Amino acid sequence: MRLPEAKAPTDTRSLTTGPIPGSRKVQLGALDVAMRVVDLPHDTQQQALPLYDTSGPYTDPAARIDLARGLSRRRRAWIAAREDTQAYEGRPIHPLDNGRADGQAAVAPCPAPHHPRRALPGRAVTQLAYAKRGIVTPEMAYVAQRESGGETGARALITPEYVRDEIARGRAILPANVNHPESEPMAIGRNFLVKVNANIGNSAVASSAVEEVEKMVWATRWGADTIMDLSTGRDIHNIRDWIIRNCPVPLGTVPIYQALEKVGGRAEDLTWEIYRDTLIEQAEQGVDYFTVHAGVRLAHIPLTIQRVTGIVSRGGAILAKWCLAHHRENFLYERFAEICEICRSYDISLSLGDGLRPGSIADANDAAQFAELRTLGKLRKIAFELDTQVMIEGPGHIPMHKIKENMDLESQICNEAPFYTLGPLTTDIAPGYDHITSAIGAAMIGWFGCAMLCYVTPKEHLGLPDRDDVKQGVIAYKIAAHAADLAKGHPGARQWDDALSRARFEFRWADQFKLALDPETAQAYHDETLPAEGAKLAHFCSMCGPKFCSMKLSHELRAQEAGAVEIGMTEMAQRFRAGGGEIYTVATRERPR
Amino acid sequence: MRLPEAKAPTDTRSLTTGPIPGSRKVQLGALDVAMRVVDLPHDTQQQALPLYDTSGPYTDPAARIDLARGLSRRRRAWIAAREDTQAYEGRPIHPLDNGRADGQAAVAPCPAPHHPRRALPGRAVTQLAYAKRGIVTPEMAYVAQRESGGETGARALITPEYVRDEIARGRAILPANVNHPESEPMAIGRNFLVKVNANIGNSAVASSAVEEVEKMVWATRWGADTIMDLSTGRDIHNIRDWIIRNCPVPLGTVPIYQALEKVGGRAEDLTWEIYRDTLIEQAEQGVDYFTVHAGVRLAHIPLTIQRVTGIVSRGGAILAKWCLAHHRENFLYERFAEICEICRSYDISLSLGDGLRPGSIADANDAAQFAELRTLGKLRKIAFELDTQVMIEGPGHIPMHKIKENMDLESQICNEAPFYTLGPLTTDIAPGYDHITSAIGAAMIGWFGCAMLCYVTPKEHLGLPDRDDVKQGVIAYKIAAHAADLAKGHPGARQWDDALSRARFEFRWADQFKLALDPETAQAYHDETLPAEGAKLAHFCSMCGPKFCSMKLSHELRAQEAGAVEIGMTEMAQRFRAGGGEIYTVATRERPR
Repeated sequence: MRLPEAKAPTDTRSLTTGPIPGSRKVQLGALDVAMRVVDLPHDTQQQALPLYDTSGPYTDPAARIDLARGLSRRRRAWIAAREDTQAYEGRPIHPLDNGRADGQAAVAPCPAPHHPRRALPGRAVTQLAYAKRGIVTPEMAYVAQRESGGETGARALITPEYVRDEIARGRAILPANVNHPESEPMAIGRNFLVKVNANIGNSAVASSAVEEVEKMVWATRWGADTIMDLSTGRDIHNIRDWIIRNCPVPLGTVPIYQALEKVGGRAEDLTWEIYRDTLIEQAEQGVDYFTVHAGVRLAHIPLTIQRVTGIVSRGGAILAKWCLAHHRENFLYERFAEICEICRSYDISLSLGDGLRPGSIADANDAAQFAELRTLGKLRKIAFELDTQVMIEGPGHIPMHKIKENMDLESQICNEAPFYTLGPLTTDIAPGYDHITSAIGAAMIGWFGCAMLCYVTPKEHLGLPDRDDVKQGVIAYKIAAHAADLAKGHPGARQWDDALSRARFEFRWADQFKLALDPETAQAYHDETLPAEGAKLAHFCSMCGPKFCSMKLSHELRAQEAGAVEIGMTEMAQRFRAGGGEIYTVATRERPR
Repeated sequence: MRLPEAKAPTDTRSLTTGPIPGSRKVQLGALDVAMRVVDLPHDTQQQALPLYDTSGPYTDPAARIDLARGLSRRRRAWIAAREDTQAYEGRPIHPLDNGRADGQAAVAPCPAPHHPRRALPGRAVTQLAYAKRGIVTPEMAYVAQRESGGETGARALITPEYVRDEIARGRAILPANVNHPESEPMAIGRNFLVKVNANIGNSAVASSAVEEVEKMVWATRWGADTIMDLSTGRDIHNIRDWIIRNCPVPLGTVPIYQALEKVGGRAEDLTWEIYRDTLIEQAEQGVDYFTVHAGVRLAHIPLTIQRVTGIVSRGGAILAKWCLAHHRENFLYERFAEICEICRSYDISLSLGDGLRPGSIADANDAAQFAELRTLGKLRKIAFELDTQVMIEGPGHIPMHKIKENMDLESQICNEAPFYTLGPLTTDIAPGYDHITSAIGAAMIGWFGCAMLCYVTPKEHLGLPDRDDVKQGVIAYKIAAHAADLAKGHPGARQWDDALSRARFEFRWADQFKLALDPETAQAYHDETLPAEGAKLAHFCSMCGPKFCSMKLSHELRAQEAGAVEIGMTEMAQRFRAGGGEIYTVATRERPR
């Protein structure tokens, strides 16, 4: 059922498209694995550096973007070939799904044709089920190539079989709802690249679906590996429709938010039936993972009373209120197996929410938090046995010396299921800079084994992030994730750093910009003091300037070294020639000190 | 000697003065220990939170700022009372000291009367010498009170005797040139609060001394514990004069920069005599610590040849060039004992520079770096035996998993002398965001025991930092330092976080802003969406809004809890009354998830 005649804003002029400056979009191999390539013709060691790319077709100049048609359904044939799902009529859309008592939504549903599918009776259609049976899916092969810098076969760092094995062990998930065939397969697990999630949410008054889609496009452009749509209020069903049909990354939600709206915001009026119906609604749309706060148990709520900041998870607070109102165990806990049954019919991954996570340094690693974690460990086991992919959410606010305990306990209690943490923030004293307080914790827990980091923006605790806040949050988290990849020794992570360092040492300014996580900002900062095009070739920068440039010293040092037999004149000469005839340069572009 | 009739710009209107919003400047006890206090009349546990304050009199509305007079000389009487120094004529100022062949400087010297002092013959006037002899100086007592949140006596977290003992062991330094009596004593050591240094440098054309002083004022306002003046070029002697006479924190320099200027930028023309003369020049002005690259040894330079980024320290490159040009050992190494003799006559601390620090992830923890560190260990021992206070500089660019090795090796090789690191940056891929790439490493190494963190601004590797870049750098590093203090368990560090968390949970918005590291930004971010004054009292914020505010849930949750005997109704009631009659609130101001 489609709601008629509502506004269908599809003007894509306000979408951010076009390549990331200095990168070239490529589709590699038989699976068309999407990556971007930075060409470095003057680098002696690697003339083309392939980089993992989450931005989808929006950065591909050859792609035709039409929000009303949605993205190409790259996984459709793979799903169909498995012959274990069927199309079906689907649940009718009610006005209440769009937060309305009756009548039509102001935003129409996305007209892209979409016929929901689900498993044939009795079949588990999850990547976990396939993995357990030894089946390597195209999705797994895609992930392997993507994580291997585009390489396959003998040159691959990670093989399809390795991906399968990690999923089969429950150590990684591959979120891939059969109703979201547009997504580019990716994996979340401690032995893969650390991933970053960005949250988006609708504006108070959603004036246009394209604005909401743009938030997703913007966040994935800067590197968000998944998106969580935390929208509430009017037209959320239809807006989610637009987002999913145009989303190249897995999309997660917290279904209790929409369920709560359907009962007028009264937590005590929530029922399993309304919640279950919301799961089906979102499952049919193509949501790839659900945050479910099934670990908020009645008996654990009193443990939060003495806390400095009580319960700070919205989902946690909703469930706590329901439990206390009814003096009953959390219905998500009691119905957990049924939730898993739904998920495995669509291949929706579960993200077990940490509703009792600490909201301050004072409450870190306390009894309430760890009691819930132990519950999540039990739930994880149930999900795994029911072939449902599952990851575990984690805190929050944790001082540095208590971070490792979180990762270690999670690994032990949850059998190494992927950990997905919010930060953690390592201090509470810097509202306005919580992307930084939390990037510190995120980098550390990523190194310790956390699989995905939920970003935090500078506006955390203060207000809703705007476009620039989202960018600042994603960039800070890409830094944390990459720093963690380096520290974990992910094969291939360091070639990016090395390529940039070589460019720096050789004064290839344009290459430094192209290789920067944010090329535009890097170049803009450089150009503030040296805007002339010639400065991009200059063997100095504004930090020391041409007069006091350490290059001057470096040139002379080279000459000294050339005459110094004991330090390897032959090597110097080789280096000299390899560098294209430029004389040996000692770069001193650090802040002078 | 004073140069006549040059421009003496003392218009202080362009100085940033006035209190940090929400803080009240106080001078505590007999020593007038400068702190700031945040008044929190509505907090149930602590109605006034004293905070460590580096901003000097510039944030004191009662202080009269007159750059031509300089700051009050709080240490003058203490120094005089020791009766181990004497005033003397001082070295004449040459045009070359101001980077000029002849004639006068464009910026006049600061007219504040200043008569250099030095030790009486044969005396060591360093805090280390006193500490070894069991003498607790007023400077040490000041530090103890400052590190104890203003408390003294039985309530002090850190006693004057403890400060003395840490200095006597060489595990802390208290940089305090007898010619900089204006400075407020502070200590750098692993058992004290982690400190932050900010670098400043003159503009290409210094139009006014007040502009240069403002850089120092600005950086210390945001929390810089020391300042390094890395200026080069014209008028640097006179500008340094203005800065030191008005500087409330220890000031460091890299004297080889000025020495190099005196020989026209030709490293090979450097001589011990010119360098020594520069040390005296700066010692008489009041520089508190010198970075000396005495560890760059001839034999170690070849170890840098195979590096991806060679030598990246400017000082390191200068000395490497000198060594190779003369095929001789570094003259700073050979004259090291003489340098110490000078330092102990003024109580200048030595910061042993890491001229061979890595400039990229690829070069981290390599043979060149650790060869130099071992040399620094030997030099530290010499300095310590000569009663010269000494700290050790460290890298640089280090991936997370190699950071701890740096700290542990430094502690072992350098007998726990204070470590002073630049970052380290944990990845090279984010030029434009290196305050973040390095805050991650800085927080970690601070936790591991690093005593002072040299800040990095967003412009690192790209250009000269402007005013906002300096602020961003200092804030990122204050976050790192405080996160490290929490993780180290510095007594008292957590009360700041807890005060802010209580304010957050109780929706005391104004108190949150006052307690924020950057109150102005915190309030501005909040007010972007909720500018009305009434919103400062509102029990919601823009993140969820009044309609979907978790407060609504929280209020209802409280009501549920009140009826639930098993979760401690009495406690809830106490909390309710303690909260001033507001109902129990569960704050859910996290990003919804």
